Amino acid sequence: MAKRVTGPEIEKLIQLLAKVPGLGPRSARRAALHMIKKKDQLMGPLARAIGEAHDKVIICSRCGNVDTSDPCTVCNDDRRDQTMIIVVEDVSDLWALERAGAMNAAYHVLGGTLSPLEGVGPDDLNIKGLIDRVAEGGIREVIIAVNATIEGQTTAHYIIDHLAGMEVKITRLAHGVPVGGELDYLDEGTLSAALRSRTAI
Amino acid sequence: MAKRVTGPEIEKLIQLLAKVPGLGPRSARRAALHMIKKKDQLMGPLARAIGEAHDKVIICSRCGNVDTSDPCTVCNDDRRDQTMIIVVEDVSDLWALERAGAMNAAYHVLGGTLSPLEGVGPDDLNIKGLIDRVAEGGIREVIIAVNATIEGQTTAHYIIDHLAGMEVKITRLAHGVPVGGELDYLDEGTLSAALRSRTAI
Repeated sequence: MAKRVTGPEIEKLIQLLAKVPGLGPRSARRAALHMIKKKDQLMGPLARAIGEAHDKVIICSRCGNVDTSDPCTVCNDDRRDQTMIIVVEDVSDLWALERAGAMNAAYHVLGGTLSPLEGVGPDDLNIKGLIDRVAEGGIREVIIAVNATIEGQTTAHYIIDHLAGMEVKITRLAHGVPVGGELDYLDEGTLSAALRSRTAI
Repeated sequence: MAKRVTGPEIEKLIQLLAKVPGLGPRSARRAALHMIKKKDQLMGPLARAIGEAHDKVIICSRCGNVDTSDPCTVCNDDRRDQTMIIVVEDVSDLWALERAGAMNAAYHVLGGTLSPLEGVGPDDLNIKGLIDRVAEGGIREVIIAVNATIEGQTTAHYIIDHLAGMEVKITRLAHGVPVGGELDYLDEGTLSAALRSRTAI
């Protein structure tokens, strides 16, 4: 804003809100005004919730999930099949797979992908932790669910190489046509993979 | 999420973030994860900023602006022409007009529009405050900058009626073609108004 029209505390709030993904400078102003109007129902509780999450959040030392307990809710869940580990790049992938609700397994969050260009090596990722978990024994299957990008696939190969020789089944997500997807809009690689992995009906 | 995958403090945070305009359930999760990753740069400062703004925010008793001081930054600004009052429905309109930077005047925030259907009468809005400000004297012009909606125009008429007889010039925003707007997409009312208010070149 050209001239100051409100107090510095509110301008500071708008500035910080604009850094939240999904909000820009304009929607940050709208968000701030909405909060001020819902002072008791939203603004106060949100301040406390962010503060509390900030104070309590930790990374699970076992799987890399974000939680407020260590081991995390997923690692502590006896109703999950803890002999199956789904390996993901990021916590957001863990949450996405959980929304799908297709598996009832444990997870391992790598925290990124190998990227020599950006200086990300194996030691920067939570790969050793995965190998240790498998080496400890009791793991039946490792499902590699990294993104289907070059970096993701490089990381997958690195992990597969380092799990070689261990008593564990290694699988990866199927490639194919997205449900609801139109063939005309899909790339050749996906179409070829979908043809190769065709299933009997 | 079907099953709990993270701590209750983080789920609570996501729930509250989803109530912020501009964020939905999905982007609230992304926002929460981003904050957690930027714990010290964003999450901590944001918790403090929301808390501080929550504790200090007040409505200016003179003009209805949102600020942390009363009278507000705008009312206290000696470099503004305090003899001109721009009347707006909401604080967001005040901010929008300030971004345009076209006037250097004072404001008056009504806090809504008259709406018999929704049970909003003159006493629910900050209209008496405006009439008192004008009655006090020293005001040259009242610029009515309410929305060009039926409720906005009803409110404008009510205000004009109650300022009648006072020594003050009353004006309203011009109707016309939005800058950058295409005639083909404009409604007939706007086009008629733009023709009637045509200006010499």
